[in-house]
Amino acid sequence: MKIGVIGGGQLGRMLALAGTPLGMSFAFLDPAADACAQALGEHVRADYNDNEHLRQLADNVDLVTFEFESVPAETVAFLSQFVPVYPSADALRIARDRWFEKSMFKELGIPTPAFADIQSQADLDEAVARIGLPAVMKTRTLGYDGKGQKVLREPADVSGAFAELGGVPCILEGFVPFTGEVSLVAVRARDGETRFYPLVHNTHTNGILQLSVASTDHPLQAQAEDYVARVLEKLDYVGVLAFEFFEVDGGLKANEIAPRVHNSGHWTIEGAECSQFENHLRAIAGLPLGSTAKVGESAMVNFIGEVPSTAKVVALDGCHLHHYGKAFKPGRKVGHATLRCTDRASLEGLIDQVQGLIQS
Amino acid sequence: MKIGVIGGGQLGRMLALAGTPLGMSFAFLDPAADACAQALGEHVRADYNDNEHLRQLADNVDLVTFEFESVPAETVAFLSQFVPVYPSADALRIARDRWFEKSMFKELGIPTPAFADIQSQADLDEAVARIGLPAVMKTRTLGYDGKGQKVLREPADVSGAFAELGGVPCILEGFVPFTGEVSLVAVRARDGETRFYPLVHNTHTNGILQLSVASTDHPLQAQAEDYVARVLEKLDYVGVLAFEFFEVDGGLKANEIAPRVHNSGHWTIEGAECSQFENHLRAIAGLPLGSTAKVGESAMVNFIGEVPSTAKVVALDGCHLHHYGKAFKPGRKVGHATLRCTDRASLEGLIDQVQGLIQS
Repeated sequence: MKIGVIGGGQLGRMLALAGTPLGMSFAFLDPAADACAQALGEHVRADYNDNEHLRQLADNVDLVTFEFESVPAETVAFLSQFVPVYPSADALRIARDRWFEKSMFKELGIPTPAFADIQSQADLDEAVARIGLPAVMKTRTLGYDGKGQKVLREPADVSGAFAELGGVPCILEGFVPFTGEVSLVAVRARDGETRFYPLVHNTHTNGILQLSVASTDHPLQAQAEDYVARVLEKLDYVGVLAFEFFEVDGGLKANEIAPRVHNSGHWTIEGAECSQFENHLRAIAGLPLGSTAKVGESAMVNFIGEVPSTAKVVALDGCHLHHYGKAFKPGRKVGHATLRCTDRASLEGLIDQVQGLIQS
Repeated sequence: MKIGVIGGGQLGRMLALAGTPLGMSFAFLDPAADACAQALGEHVRADYNDNEHLRQLADNVDLVTFEFESVPAETVAFLSQFVPVYPSADALRIARDRWFEKSMFKELGIPTPAFADIQSQADLDEAVARIGLPAVMKTRTLGYDGKGQKVLREPADVSGAFAELGGVPCILEGFVPFTGEVSLVAVRARDGETRFYPLVHNTHTNGILQLSVASTDHPLQAQAEDYVARVLEKLDYVGVLAFEFFEVDGGLKANEIAPRVHNSGHWTIEGAECSQFENHLRAIAGLPLGSTAKVGESAMVNFIGEVPSTAKVVALDGCHLHHYGKAFKPGRKVGHATLRCTDRASLEGLIDQVQGLIQS
């Protein structure tokens, strides 16, 4: 089976590493000459709206999936004429737009921070009056890793903020005094079977994920699974989806979903019986889903900007290097380590050791 | 770091799957148009004695390794002029020739079946008189998976046997009434550090490996490690080496070595902390070695001729499919499953289930 992937970054690369042993082959459509997934498959170098190359990809593969959600709706619609596409155009349309996304959460009874649609500075002023400060303003589409957003702390931050974010449609979200950030990675098969990985505790710095630690018997697991199941069913979703939540007052408030394999699920490569990458491929290929159970205690440390010395990383027992083969650049995700230990205390020690390599 | 691999079959493919996350890239020299490793790296399509292409490979990579031992000595010598080659020309020279190999075992005090060098029918007649029947006659070089050998059970089998195996240099080995076949996979770093995986019980059918089961606290582990260490030191070996033994009267007799990653070590992909593939690459790249400890109880079932239905294989919890992407052909190794369970009884049940898929 040949899989077409829109995007050829590290997520595409890790999909191919998981799918090749299943007998799958891969083609990646990505405009970047140095797209790092190309080491593992064909590289169709073209823009995401280049219909000629999209058609060429569609004719050459059995199905198409995505490694990021900011795909133009027209791209998905165009591809869907010629080849099965997972997740569906509808799921992508909603996930790529924070207004549609939050509105869906509300409709499904999933708690969210207060939010408002912002089409102008007047909308913003009115929403701030209603929701209060502090609040976070985010572009409805195309934001990631803390980009395309602005924290509004006091009235002075509000004036001119709409223009500052480019005068594009935005969403205003009330600030949530969260005690933690967690995410749930789930996978849903074509036949509707759904499985969930354990909740993951995430730590961000400057809007970029630094550390994910898989939990054991988290008291909010069942609550999170219920919320995620509502979304998966609503979207008739096929594949892996990640749902990020704020922990507030011992409960969950929805932050956002990512309709794809997700950075907070990278620990599953060595830390779960079947990784998020393999499970995404199994789901879209119509294969039985794999076990989402943990193997030992596991965490993931991101390498941002550069990967520490390979010799030092691999010298740590229980530490598995995942180098993305990308050029090093400040703020860029260029690799991660999956940590797997038999007990929690060892895991915490290992997290410290790996983070020590980053700072040194 | 870019690694050149002589041979582009499944071993090269699995080396690349293990090395890509370490940030390595790969080039495979293989004359076959459909060499299955090419999905994961550059394919230099050329014969093994094509010096022009060997030179092109050498100039394009940081070091060269091998996925099989039947490489012409001239190939290794030629490459060694331009690029570091692991394992060394000397190790390959000995491992590819059963006479050199057995003579080395004898020199190192490692028990072997009785053996004799056969250069003619007269040599054979004399050796049979000395060693007795039954005995096994094998070509000194190029034999594998039961090819290039003949079992001599009675005097009638002896006459004309030399011509029957092609009139090429052979070795005669006394038949060993073994109770089991085990192998030890070891890895030795550039600085001499050596690690051993647990002994593996192997089951062959028609000379082809069918099943490998990793042992726990095998009573012959220390003995096997001692023998393998002697060989590794003698050859100043760098990389992974597999040593196959016969279990006889509660002790070990040397069968043969393979100077490379080995089919009986495939279980390590999911079954050990660091796989034989990653450890081979770590060794030749001068990186610290990884842990050879088991993760749970593990085994490997080979898929010969064809891979059973992917859906049926992946439906079994604890069963990890490794499809080599090769055309199906009777007698050809086209994939394997790594089985990993928490306890031995579950593992045995799972082995039966997987073998059931093959027979059905």
